Amino acid sequence: MKGLYLKTADVNLPELNEEIITPEISRQILSSGDETVIDLGNHYVGYFSFKLNSADEYIDAPVRLRIQFCEISNELEYDFSAYNGGLCESWLQEEIINIDFPGEYEMQRRYAARYIKIKVVATRQKIVLSDFEFNSVSSADVKQLKELTGCEEALKKIDSVAVNTLKNCMQRVFEDGPKRDRRLWIGDLRLEALTNYYTFNNLSLVLRCLYLFAAADTNDKEFIPGYIYENPSYVSGSWFLEDYALLFVASVCDYYNHTEDNETFEDLYPVVKQQMDAMHMTLDADGIVTIAEGCDAFIDWCEGLEKITSLHGVYMYVLGNLVDVLNKINHKDKNVYLKRYEAARKSAENMLYNKEKQAFLNAKDNYQYSVHSAVWMVLGGVVTGKNAEELLLSVLNSADSLKPFTPYMHHYVVEAMIKLGMMKEAAAYIKKYWGGMVNLGADTFYEVYVPEDLDFSPYGDKKLNSMCHAWSCTPAYYIRKYFDNSDI
Amino acid sequence: MKGLYLKTADVNLPELNEEIITPEISRQILSSGDETVIDLGNHYVGYFSFKLNSADEYIDAPVRLRIQFCEISNELEYDFSAYNGGLCESWLQEEIINIDFPGEYEMQRRYAARYIKIKVVATRQKIVLSDFEFNSVSSADVKQLKELTGCEEALKKIDSVAVNTLKNCMQRVFEDGPKRDRRLWIGDLRLEALTNYYTFNNLSLVLRCLYLFAAADTNDKEFIPGYIYENPSYVSGSWFLEDYALLFVASVCDYYNHTEDNETFEDLYPVVKQQMDAMHMTLDADGIVTIAEGCDAFIDWCEGLEKITSLHGVYMYVLGNLVDVLNKINHKDKNVYLKRYEAARKSAENMLYNKEKQAFLNAKDNYQYSVHSAVWMVLGGVVTGKNAEELLLSVLNSADSLKPFTPYMHHYVVEAMIKLGMMKEAAAYIKKYWGGMVNLGADTFYEVYVPEDLDFSPYGDKKLNSMCHAWSCTPAYYIRKYFDNSDI
Repeated sequence: MKGLYLKTADVNLPELNEEIITPEISRQILSSGDETVIDLGNHYVGYFSFKLNSADEYIDAPVRLRIQFCEISNELEYDFSAYNGGLCESWLQEEIINIDFPGEYEMQRRYAARYIKIKVVATRQKIVLSDFEFNSVSSADVKQLKELTGCEEALKKIDSVAVNTLKNCMQRVFEDGPKRDRRLWIGDLRLEALTNYYTFNNLSLVLRCLYLFAAADTNDKEFIPGYIYENPSYVSGSWFLEDYALLFVASVCDYYNHTEDNETFEDLYPVVKQQMDAMHMTLDADGIVTIAEGCDAFIDWCEGLEKITSLHGVYMYVLGNLVDVLNKINHKDKNVYLKRYEAARKSAENMLYNKEKQAFLNAKDNYQYSVHSAVWMVLGGVVTGKNAEELLLSVLNSADSLKPFTPYMHHYVVEAMIKLGMMKEAAAYIKKYWGGMVNLGADTFYEVYVPEDLDFSPYGDKKLNSMCHAWSCTPAYYIRKYFDNSDI
Repeated sequence: MKGLYLKTADVNLPELNEEIITPEISRQILSSGDETVIDLGNHYVGYFSFKLNSADEYIDAPVRLRIQFCEISNELEYDFSAYNGGLCESWLQEEIINIDFPGEYEMQRRYAARYIKIKVVATRQKIVLSDFEFNSVSSADVKQLKELTGCEEALKKIDSVAVNTLKNCMQRVFEDGPKRDRRLWIGDLRLEALTNYYTFNNLSLVLRCLYLFAAADTNDKEFIPGYIYENPSYVSGSWFLEDYALLFVASVCDYYNHTEDNETFEDLYPVVKQQMDAMHMTLDADGIVTIAEGCDAFIDWCEGLEKITSLHGVYMYVLGNLVDVLNKINHKDKNVYLKRYEAARKSAENMLYNKEKQAFLNAKDNYQYSVHSAVWMVLGGVVTGKNAEELLLSVLNSADSLKPFTPYMHHYVVEAMIKLGMMKEAAAYIKKYWGGMVNLGADTFYEVYVPEDLDFSPYGDKKLNSMCHAWSCTPAYYIRKYFDNSDI
């Protein structure tokens, strides 16, 4: 079965669309020690080439250049040699190259950049650099993109940055970030696929990614891993995140809802069922999810966050999505999951809600208070209507609650608002949060954006934060699905 | 005419012979920070490739390697980042490379090395490096090389190192050094061509180099420059060395003497005549050569050396060689040069010899005392027989005389001895000087070797001394022409 899944994934390996970007800067005459910065005018992912020639004298020694690729202008000031983070320093987009003879020089690796900083480390003679070209690649076909027709400027701008983010992450798979990791994660895949349906609509790429996960090695609980590698050859990931395993199911449901492709749904149903059964097996005596041994949950990068209530919400949310699809196709298992959903809802009401505080806590025996729990309880349908709206606004406005850190978690805040019909609040939230990045000059949305702490990095050094990150692209989904041509 | 010369040079562009070197070291498992050294077993010039694979886990970040190519084992200890010399640091044979995916990695540049030091600068997982290959290239065809048959072991060993030196310098041209400069210089060309006649006998390569110089732009005196560039396209040099211009003539005479190729001699004769006439024009009222404005002389790297007497000797030596060839072919100009030779000899006797000190001085009005002057006066034929022998031994053994610094100048010491029939002394000189490098473990002979100062560099930092240098290859010429199967 895994072999068959991999075959389907292979069939769907996308062709990359290419676009040659020619920056405004043309001919640069440089001496040893000189620097020049090339501005591509936007963030792209691809391959850089240029020509090296002599200025007035034969170049009689190799020319040594240091070339840095920067996603945002702040990076131009970073000292890469002073990197101190936890991620491998080889992700720093820097090359030292030596060129023996004048001519065209094509760099072989792929970079994610708007700015290219070239320092002439050593040359004996003046050199001329010219014919800068950046061959931008993506499996997104920009011709598929429809123009927005009735949308205020602020949202239009946010949409264009979101679309660019998605485009640059769409490569052989939906990458999490084209600068770093470049890995297929379920959490990112789901948000990219959703946004893709409303923008480039590359269904083949979604299929490929779903089948790549279907082919993965599961752990002894039958959970698929949170990520897989597929280049240069297929390797299953080794980190098992229960929420991500559940969101694989959500992604399959999203795909069905968008395509009504019964065949694919049936094809992937065994893997869907495995995830749901595996999650069911984690329930404790009170009917609340647990994190099984050797497993984990992501939810958000919010430090110290207790995740059980959120995870229980994810479970219910996915059960709800699955029941919807099974009902549509009148699947034999539909009542199995409906019953599980009802039981999970009761358990949540009994065990996770604190009536006195009128709030969801982050775990049965833990009084930590967070936006995360509230959002996932809303999305899980444990609270509804006016109650839910008040509860959500209350935790968002509280000075004491843990707040979302990642655009990924902020996405689910917006989804909860939309589920509750809070359309104006949702639009305002997008304008405030993602618009904040636009105000900073973002060409693509960042992996991490904490308005109160712009230098925050989950890796110990912002130099390796990814400034074009898949899970931040969803404003385009919301704007195109709900806000374009609406009178919010 | 220059265009025609260039055409002949192009026709003679050599094919490079390849040999794949597989070092004994096979598979290396390395972690971040680890180093490994690959010993090729001998000095080679060419291209390096290897395979990178994962050891036990998928490699999830680029692998950053620092790769240094070292000609001798001492270089393995050099800190390249502390380079302080006058030559461009980009000649330091070091690359920092980033590899995204496992597989074969072929480095694109050419290196000169026996040792390859690889440091794993950054990787997240253990890596395996394997399948090391060095594709050695040379325009020397080793099948042309005859084995020595009657020669003591010490000279045999010196010969093999000399032959390897020449082989590694024979590329598109006779390079001065394959690690650095890689330039066609007349001084090196002459010694390489001479040695080539007795080893690989690649006549086409000699022709190519002679025609490349014939095509060069001369200065207002009609001297050709001391060097030219020919890659990626032809560029005439801009440093005019009178002794080198004269040695071009010697090189044409050597070629005629080896091949009796009248046609080539006649073809190049206009350039030969130009050099001789230009030199003639520099003579002062006393009939002694001068260094014309905008010109220079090399002779040796001996600091503070006055060069007029040596240069006058080079002039006479080349006049002598030319007259010999013109006599052989009964050329109309033979008496012109014979007269110039006789006049130059008289002037030397009158103006450059100090009877009281029984020594040649380094210039008319300068009492500096050097081996250089003595050697070139012997080679020019100003002194002969027993007188010359005594004079030569005396200056070589004097504590006060300036001594040769470069193997290039040491070559002419040996030639002077052989001219005087001092065969035993010549063999002993070679064993002492070049044998000294062999005793240090040399696989190829060095650009500079000063036994009393092993760290000497003409460039302010020994890290860029060339350890395989054309002008040091001539022991193979002497051994094969004079000492193999002789009873010295």
